[in-house]
Amino acid sequence: MDKDISIGLIGFGTIGTGVVKLLQDNGELIRKRLGARLVIKKIADIDITSPRQIEVDRQLLTTDVQEILDDPDISIVVELVGGCTHAKTIVLDAIRGGKHLVTANKALIASCGNEIFEAADEEKINIGFEASVGGTIPIIKTLKESLAGNNIDSIFGIMNGTCNYILTRMTSEKRDFQSVLMEAQEFGFAEADSSYDIEGIDTAHKLAICLSLSYGKRVELDDIYREGISKMSPLDIEFAGDLGYTIKLLAIAIRRWGMIEARIHPTMIPFDHILASVNGNFNAFHLMGDASGSVFLYGQGAGMMPTASAVVGDLIDISRDIMAGTWRRVPLRSYKKEEIEDIHLLPMDDVVTNYYFRFSAVDRPGVLSRISGILGKHDISISSVIQKEKKLDRDKGVPIVVTTYKAREKNVRAALEEIDNTLDDVVFGKTTLIRIEDESLR
Amino acid sequence: MDKDISIGLIGFGTIGTGVVKLLQDNGELIRKRLGARLVIKKIADIDITSPRQIEVDRQLLTTDVQEILDDPDISIVVELVGGCTHAKTIVLDAIRGGKHLVTANKALIASCGNEIFEAADEEKINIGFEASVGGTIPIIKTLKESLAGNNIDSIFGIMNGTCNYILTRMTSEKRDFQSVLMEAQEFGFAEADSSYDIEGIDTAHKLAICLSLSYGKRVELDDIYREGISKMSPLDIEFAGDLGYTIKLLAIAIRRWGMIEARIHPTMIPFDHILASVNGNFNAFHLMGDASGSVFLYGQGAGMMPTASAVVGDLIDISRDIMAGTWRRVPLRSYKKEEIEDIHLLPMDDVVTNYYFRFSAVDRPGVLSRISGILGKHDISISSVIQKEKKLDRDKGVPIVVTTYKAREKNVRAALEEIDNTLDDVVFGKTTLIRIEDESLR
Repeated sequence: MDKDISIGLIGFGTIGTGVVKLLQDNGELIRKRLGARLVIKKIADIDITSPRQIEVDRQLLTTDVQEILDDPDISIVVELVGGCTHAKTIVLDAIRGGKHLVTANKALIASCGNEIFEAADEEKINIGFEASVGGTIPIIKTLKESLAGNNIDSIFGIMNGTCNYILTRMTSEKRDFQSVLMEAQEFGFAEADSSYDIEGIDTAHKLAICLSLSYGKRVELDDIYREGISKMSPLDIEFAGDLGYTIKLLAIAIRRWGMIEARIHPTMIPFDHILASVNGNFNAFHLMGDASGSVFLYGQGAGMMPTASAVVGDLIDISRDIMAGTWRRVPLRSYKKEEIEDIHLLPMDDVVTNYYFRFSAVDRPGVLSRISGILGKHDISISSVIQKEKKLDRDKGVPIVVTTYKAREKNVRAALEEIDNTLDDVVFGKTTLIRIEDESLR
Repeated sequence: MDKDISIGLIGFGTIGTGVVKLLQDNGELIRKRLGARLVIKKIADIDITSPRQIEVDRQLLTTDVQEILDDPDISIVVELVGGCTHAKTIVLDAIRGGKHLVTANKALIASCGNEIFEAADEEKINIGFEASVGGTIPIIKTLKESLAGNNIDSIFGIMNGTCNYILTRMTSEKRDFQSVLMEAQEFGFAEADSSYDIEGIDTAHKLAICLSLSYGKRVELDDIYREGISKMSPLDIEFAGDLGYTIKLLAIAIRRWGMIEARIHPTMIPFDHILASVNGNFNAFHLMGDASGSVFLYGQGAGMMPTASAVVGDLIDISRDIMAGTWRRVPLRSYKKEEIEDIHLLPMDDVVTNYYFRFSAVDRPGVLSRISGILGKHDISISSVIQKEKKLDRDKGVPIVVTTYKAREKNVRAALEEIDNTLDDVVFGKTTLIRIEDESLR
């Protein structure tokens, strides 16, 4: 007779429903692999009356979280409440009560990871958070286990499905940001309040978790440079195409000169790079290990069953530890607690990369010469120039597109400020800047 | 003071050198993650005098494998001998001697896995074989752990870098198989005796291992249908392009009607599928879990450091089990031993898929009608036809390319046999058949 491992589920929304469904549908398969049954003993939610996509015994349902926290039979708590206030109290109470934890809550791990992990270490508690980054993609396990022998030289990730969906539609249908966003909201591919996704905050939470697993220390979210996609225009997407690039919202971490670069922004990447083929609401991670070379992982970053798959993977993992009589095999941050050091993030000013600028200028000889003069003065070398007459617009001027060789962010900002301020007789408005990643992706 | 875990390395070729180098270069990083030092205590090889890319203490080197097997300090043996005869003896001796094992030997695991795993279970020994399939790609761990809650509905894999390199060059440079193969051999991208790679035998070993992890039982290698790439012609690659397809040597496993389809053959896949963007000597796996949906993993399938990365990942994994005081957390075949059942492979005759045929026919009215008549008689519906005059060759005729809707392999073979035999007044030689995977990849 196989052992039962009792689980308490807190939060019975979409993902919670998926977890219960997966344990119902594949319970026997899981038992054959694990040698134990994963049994949902209690489900807590403020709403236990609305119908779900699945049938559950009404005896399992409660509105009182405490019933789960106080149940001595329950070994693992699955926290699917989301957010940082209520969830944090629940998680800390569960840990103090000696219960292992599985969570999909990236905001919680990114913002309160230190406090939670410390409590977990004290109480000898295991925490699974595979579902918090990249949904069904095994990014956490790959960083903590498969690539444990590697220094991670870089991470390039498409970590937000909503942004990738919007950029994909803007690219394939040559449409503007607002119209695609509104349609995405209508069809449920984007939240009504989309700023958490669109402005890259969700991506920053996920990158912070990846940084901590790769380099051993929690990063302050505010230290990660972040630009969202709301200013993307179809014109820049079209020019990018002319230059052989696709635009993606990338989360980037690069190990350089003993420091870590960490930034999130719309990025031009070469058409033929595998990240460029990640379309729609998929997520993907391009990792570069110093021994492994490129490792690329791709899958659904959200959704009921893909996320449930990751939660159940963690439940099985923790159950295996329980059955092996150990409380945790792999350190939570992938480094032993006593080895965790501060990560020094490179200031954005010191980042060196390639750039795309789109100037809106009057259609008159000599303008390019004045622009390139200022760029040169700031140590920025031009790699290519496109001037297209067809785009002429009397009020906005003609677009002049310039791409650069490697340049320093600080110099770039100074140059653009000088151009926008001192060339205002020939250059209109604020110049568009998009970073290009090419060599560092190879 | 951290614990030392002593390792004996058997086989000091390219991969062995990579493993020693990685433990030298990243030893301190590994110690910080693991909380123990991985120490190479002995290295056995028949050749201990030739220079390697790294410096090692000559005291570590021996030509006598027994020195490793008899050393009571050594906890883990890394077998990098390759092949099935000598390696099998070593591995069984190591297991009987109570040593855990890490191997990159796919032939051994695929052909003798049953016997080795049984011995390991008896002796409570752990075996890591991540490096045996997909090199640096964490495919074994993903199947055994991350996706443990899923039924695996399908696996589509590019599992042999040599074949993918050759097909990529044939496609991008419109060259024929022989000339690309010879060049690949010259540059060391293909073995002098390339049949193990080219004929899909290497791929069959890897698919057999994936099948066993996904469905719970070793498969007879001979039961896996297998076609290599040596008959691929630039003409078919060109027609595939016209139809929107790229040709890859795919290893395919599909769960259907309670049976498993397992086959290896050149396959047309849509340009815009992510597998189509896997070029050169990279490997990739497109998995479909019933909860996870698509999961795609990509990386270097071979090479010194990428393979060493996987070997060291296994060394860390097994060391974590040792330090947790358990001998093995995850079953070797991903199912508990007592739950392993026979896999029923669908006979190739019963496989249903889409097909591409290229007939060489005389350029005369009525030929297509006779061909399509025979296809129809065998229940094969035509989806598209291409006839290109430009390809005219007096001795070989003009190519007529036909693609089909879903058809049964048995009917396809019968139809082509009838066409090749009874239409020999208008159709020359043997008709080319290439399978198309489209819907099942979505």
